[in-house]
Amino acid sequence: MPDISIPQARRIVVDTTGAQIVQEESPATRDSRGIYLPHYIEPVSHIAIDIGGSLAKVVYFTRSNLPISTTPPQSETSSPFLPPSESVFIPPLSSNGASSSSHIQSPSLNPHSHAPFDHSPPQRRPALNGALTPGVLSEDYNHHHASSSSPPINTISPSPSSKGKLSSHHSKYRRSSLPPPLPGGLLNFARFETEHIQDLIAFLQDLIKSSASANRVSLEKMQKNVKVMATGGGAHMYYDRLKDELGVEVTREEEMECLILGLGFVSKIPQEVFWFSEELVYKVSHTSTSTSAQPQSPIKLTIPASELPRPSPTPPAYQVTFADTLDGTDSVPHFPCLIVNIGSGVSIVKVDEDGSFERVSGTSLGGGTLWGLLSLLTDAENFDEMLLLSEQGDNSAVDMLVGDIYGSDYSKIGLKSSTIASSFGKVFRKGSNPEERKKTFRQEDIAKSLLYAISNNIGHVAYMNAAKYGLDKVFFGGCFIRGHAATISTLSYAIRFWSKGTMRACFLRHEGLLGAIGAWIKNVEPEPELQPQNGKGENGL
Amino acid sequence: MPDISIPQARRIVVDTTGAQIVQEESPATRDSRGIYLPHYIEPVSHIAIDIGGSLAKVVYFTRSNLPISTTPPQSETSSPFLPPSESVFIPPLSSNGASSSSHIQSPSLNPHSHAPFDHSPPQRRPALNGALTPGVLSEDYNHHHASSSSPPINTISPSPSSKGKLSSHHSKYRRSSLPPPLPGGLLNFARFETEHIQDLIAFLQDLIKSSASANRVSLEKMQKNVKVMATGGGAHMYYDRLKDELGVEVTREEEMECLILGLGFVSKIPQEVFWFSEELVYKVSHTSTSTSAQPQSPIKLTIPASELPRPSPTPPAYQVTFADTLDGTDSVPHFPCLIVNIGSGVSIVKVDEDGSFERVSGTSLGGGTLWGLLSLLTDAENFDEMLLLSEQGDNSAVDMLVGDIYGSDYSKIGLKSSTIASSFGKVFRKGSNPEERKKTFRQEDIAKSLLYAISNNIGHVAYMNAAKYGLDKVFFGGCFIRGHAATISTLSYAIRFWSKGTMRACFLRHEGLLGAIGAWIKNVEPEPELQPQNGKGENGL
Repeated sequence: MPDISIPQARRIVVDTTGAQIVQEESPATRDSRGIYLPHYIEPVSHIAIDIGGSLAKVVYFTRSNLPISTTPPQSETSSPFLPPSESVFIPPLSSNGASSSSHIQSPSLNPHSHAPFDHSPPQRRPALNGALTPGVLSEDYNHHHASSSSPPINTISPSPSSKGKLSSHHSKYRRSSLPPPLPGGLLNFARFETEHIQDLIAFLQDLIKSSASANRVSLEKMQKNVKVMATGGGAHMYYDRLKDELGVEVTREEEMECLILGLGFVSKIPQEVFWFSEELVYKVSHTSTSTSAQPQSPIKLTIPASELPRPSPTPPAYQVTFADTLDGTDSVPHFPCLIVNIGSGVSIVKVDEDGSFERVSGTSLGGGTLWGLLSLLTDAENFDEMLLLSEQGDNSAVDMLVGDIYGSDYSKIGLKSSTIASSFGKVFRKGSNPEERKKTFRQEDIAKSLLYAISNNIGHVAYMNAAKYGLDKVFFGGCFIRGHAATISTLSYAIRFWSKGTMRACFLRHEGLLGAIGAWIKNVEPEPELQPQNGKGENGL
Repeated sequence: MPDISIPQARRIVVDTTGAQIVQEESPATRDSRGIYLPHYIEPVSHIAIDIGGSLAKVVYFTRSNLPISTTPPQSETSSPFLPPSESVFIPPLSSNGASSSSHIQSPSLNPHSHAPFDHSPPQRRPALNGALTPGVLSEDYNHHHASSSSPPINTISPSPSSKGKLSSHHSKYRRSSLPPPLPGGLLNFARFETEHIQDLIAFLQDLIKSSASANRVSLEKMQKNVKVMATGGGAHMYYDRLKDELGVEVTREEEMECLILGLGFVSKIPQEVFWFSEELVYKVSHTSTSTSAQPQSPIKLTIPASELPRPSPTPPAYQVTFADTLDGTDSVPHFPCLIVNIGSGVSIVKVDEDGSFERVSGTSLGGGTLWGLLSLLTDAENFDEMLLLSEQGDNSAVDMLVGDIYGSDYSKIGLKSSTIASSFGKVFRKGSNPEERKKTFRQEDIAKSLLYAISNNIGHVAYMNAAKYGLDKVFFGGCFIRGHAATISTLSYAIRFWSKGTMRACFLRHEGLLGAIGAWIKNVEPEPELQPQNGKGENGL
């Protein structure tokens, strides 16, 4: 595997003109099963839940004036399954729109590498580094997007100098309005398996209880003030249970709308949207994997993001390219685009330039399929282990390639010997019974073959839909990809192959959280009583 | 399962104006592993082989004046895997184009039902029943199709009253030419696993040797006169081996071209092309399968094809509909169309009205994938057993349905509770280790889930390509379907669902033999010395 730095979800600070990364994540233990609660003592005001078929994603908003600088304590509660956590810190905003914080991002590392975090000190001020903050982008949006006629939606207030639209979907604020800014705070994330919904509920109960203590109010009063919004299928399935067991009012938000909202928001976070260069796709896709006993070494970090070259017309080879390292004023708006949300299943949503959207397609061959198949065919105990297995696999031991059938290129129709003709196509031949056959094939090879099969198929279906609607950008969301190089390169390659290079596959660091973040956005209201310099409102929330 | 009669591949007689079914198959044992050689004593003149990734299909032409009336002997040789065999009998043709034979087809039965064959006597003369013979069709082709500019291709000679085109691709003969007709003969079929190519070669060696005996010539002389044409990937892989071990000249034919040629030919055989009515698709797709211990009874024959109602504007419900039971003069030409050839992998070929074609797409999730997965996840020993397992399965035990995630219809985006959201999506949850999980799920349910997953995906990709090229007819070929009701209905449903009813999925009884038949067609030459009334040429072949 080449040395690549895959961008990971990370600490985000949201100021009231949008988001910017101002602080590095704490070097908490990267145990994917550990809960990460950087501010469990902070009062919670908003909780957004996206309950999918397999995973329930939680976004909870805690309010604080202070940047995070201490190592968060490990929770003693049960361990919900958690991704490398990011938190969103919202500093109070001065009226001129400048953030009071000067911390800048540093890259975090691929969790699969189990390497320590990079503690490089912040090097650039947000306003001067050309990094794209939503504050800056908002001005671009004034130029690029017409107002939509969407109904009024409460959203983060704009600063005087911008429309403050989180996406062109929310263009209701005009330059002349001056709604007061939101107080600073933090967006925290957690994840659970939907099958263990009781763990999620217990977690939220704890959160609300802790918030009541931190606020020195009764639980009942806390429950009256906490807002919970739920999206995803489980918002319907578990609505009554959430209401009853949390004792709070629960709002149900439409899934696709939250997805689009979330995408519009996160896509403005600096170094959020990224893609693989052609060379990087090729290198990852075509690295011959040895089937010898030596396991592959994990992906190592090479070039820290802080040392990425300045914007240039030619993206550096073998590098992940961020959407916003391009010259800020030339940044291409993300809409119109196709969103492919890969969860248990796959939803494909077309988004128009003005942010209106329509679910146009989908496929049932998604993350749940791969997870289910590999849970029977390998000893891996969770999805991350399955991905690790695949990194050491050689799919040609299991797949029937064009070369296996034809003995040479089938170049007349543009196929190469190494093209997969039939996924898993070699398996039926070997051995006289299932047990014997299973011993013939390595779990690593099986894992890689099926990862390729599912990813290639999603890329193919995504391409066909993008082509049908004349779109050249495909965003991949959902918890399936989770920064895995082979998956990203497979999806990227599929898009490039079928489109003959005219389309691009884009990825997001907060890919699995789009729905939850969107649900949060829909329900965050500005507080009229707040003064910009004073982060706390009078009601203590 | 509803009572439906799935058309099966069957005995075909080819007269020199094309093909018509004139004789019923013999009630040979329907052991799929048995070899069926109705005329192994007949001299072979042409052998066409289509060697795919998993299966090698053989078409061999034997020449004979006599209709087949005796039960063919069982071969004592090793048992290549064989489908319900069809043979093609070519009676000598009189100069006025009328066939000397008056045998008419009777339906054969679904091999899965293990029911005896229907011996209903022939009831109609070919010329009077409205059945579509290529002879009749050729005249239609004069009306509907312009001459193509294809290079001269040797093909079955036309009668004086028709162009004799086997497809609009071969329109080089004009009304004024009177090439002599081909002598009568028989097209026989056999099938082997490509992995056991030595069995195929041994079979062909026997065939050639037997032909030499029957002709009372030496083996060497026989080898000089037998023509072998090979297509498929294996034509390249095994070219040298075929030449060396058979001692004959081997022609390699291009795969896609043979596919189209074969389709053009077989599509004119009466009751070859069929589709499921909407009601039948629904009935097969939505039959709730009990998961109780009682196995499902096999599909039973109800209405023999000979009793099908006369053509009407409303196809009968719950019936397979044949393309040619429509009024002959209104028959819709089959081109342009999309061909989806489902073998180990899937090739998707666009065919224009004039017969020119282009491979436009494909997917690696094909028959080989299903075969491979089920070979590890079930105890089934071959693909037919896997299909039988699936007939008794309930996929909702294994798949995550929309209803499982949302608790109700997600009707806003047109999904029903019963729609599969994530194939195999329930599997990862259960049990603490793979062995325990495997015991939790029935093999039947696993088989059905994966059959649906693969078939639905193929239907989806096929639809998208048909839509892209403005085609409303999709032919499914290849050995994957083999008359299995659930597969046919799944593919039909997918096409109808995605196209909102504007497209139709068409199936062929000789679906797996298109390439081999096409290769045969390309190499059959008329014999100038033959007199129409005398079937045998002077050279004894």
